[in-house]
Amino acid sequence: MNKVKVPDIIVSRLPVYLRALQYMAANGNTTTSSQELGEKVGISAAQIRKDLSQFGEFGKQGTGYHISFLIERLLQILKVETIWDVVLVGMGEIGHAILRYQGFGNRGFRIVACYDSDPAKIGSQVASFTIGDVKNIIKDIKDGSYKMAMLCVPASVAQEVTDKLVEAGIKGILNYAPVSLAVPPDVRVQYIDPVIGLQRMAYYLTEK
Amino acid sequence: MNKVKVPDIIVSRLPVYLRALQYMAANGNTTTSSQELGEKVGISAAQIRKDLSQFGEFGKQGTGYHISFLIERLLQILKVETIWDVVLVGMGEIGHAILRYQGFGNRGFRIVACYDSDPAKIGSQVASFTIGDVKNIIKDIKDGSYKMAMLCVPASVAQEVTDKLVEAGIKGILNYAPVSLAVPPDVRVQYIDPVIGLQRMAYYLTEK
Repeated sequence: MNKVKVPDIIVSRLPVYLRALQYMAANGNTTTSSQELGEKVGISAAQIRKDLSQFGEFGKQGTGYHISFLIERLLQILKVETIWDVVLVGMGEIGHAILRYQGFGNRGFRIVACYDSDPAKIGSQVASFTIGDVKNIIKDIKDGSYKMAMLCVPASVAQEVTDKLVEAGIKGILNYAPVSLAVPPDVRVQYIDPVIGLQRMAYYLTEK
Repeated sequence: MNKVKVPDIIVSRLPVYLRALQYMAANGNTTTSSQELGEKVGISAAQIRKDLSQFGEFGKQGTGYHISFLIERLLQILKVETIWDVVLVGMGEIGHAILRYQGFGNRGFRIVACYDSDPAKIGSQVASFTIGDVKNIIKDIKDGSYKMAMLCVPASVAQEVTDKLVEAGIKGILNYAPVSLAVPPDVRVQYIDPVIGLQRMAYYLTEK
């Protein structure tokens, strides 16, 4: 599978389908249709069928999709059927909130290490982690054992830490710092910046 | 301006340009080029010029862009040159982290009210806010004074609270609950779900 390059815009929708299907499954549903799924996620039934058809045949005309089967296939396609180890860098407010967040575990990710540059934080205990020194990231993880990181450092040092993560073999960075990062072509960055989302909506608002 | 409908994909990039330009300005830069801006945000110079050309003439061949002028125009285009009042619903870990987040104030938004449904939280003080009862949202804000909300409630009640927000006249919802929301066509939702970003990157990773 995935021999043909699938457009990134389609890839970006798969986690949204997966989340909705897992939610349906948790609520006891066993089958669904592209119509019903579309209503849940705000995407047309035709678009969903077209997106999924990139990866094979998942549903039957008339009977729709078996939710558990479709979940299983999407987990495989997204490579999250087993758990990815994720490194967390920056133990300020956001870093702590992420560490307490309950929503990672059953969706393909777990935090395995925490780092900061503040001497007052390094060595201290947060949940089950001892906060490591960001200086040692390359040494600690350059055996290539970790591929993903969450970056919650201030914007002013985000690029510097990113360079270290890239040197350490990290290939995917979820960036909470409100700044764009420069990375090599084989490294991906996804941005979590609430203001970007708010500004994008403000554009469409007509009055205060 | 904005007489012609600009594609949403272009709108989605404007906040990213704005953030990079504000960062440059904060570092003392006064002019930039589509080339330089493109390197900062990981978007081609040609794409940036094309995006901006939807809204008028901003730069001159050879001299590039005046950063402060471009910032001012983008603030106007995105309608964030003055401050939007935002209602925060759900005072768990994420709600508290948002309240402590320092990055809203100078980018067009401020939180003006906090709500929860937990009797143990209602009436208690967080920062300068008294947490209100989510039951009263419609009554409190249906004069249409607030247009935007951040939703940080559990997935299981997110739709129910959304329906209340919509009835109260909210037109833009930044949703931290890991679930898709159904809203009328004139209401926009932006999603903040770290797992969606992580799963989207995992797709491109070749090995654990």
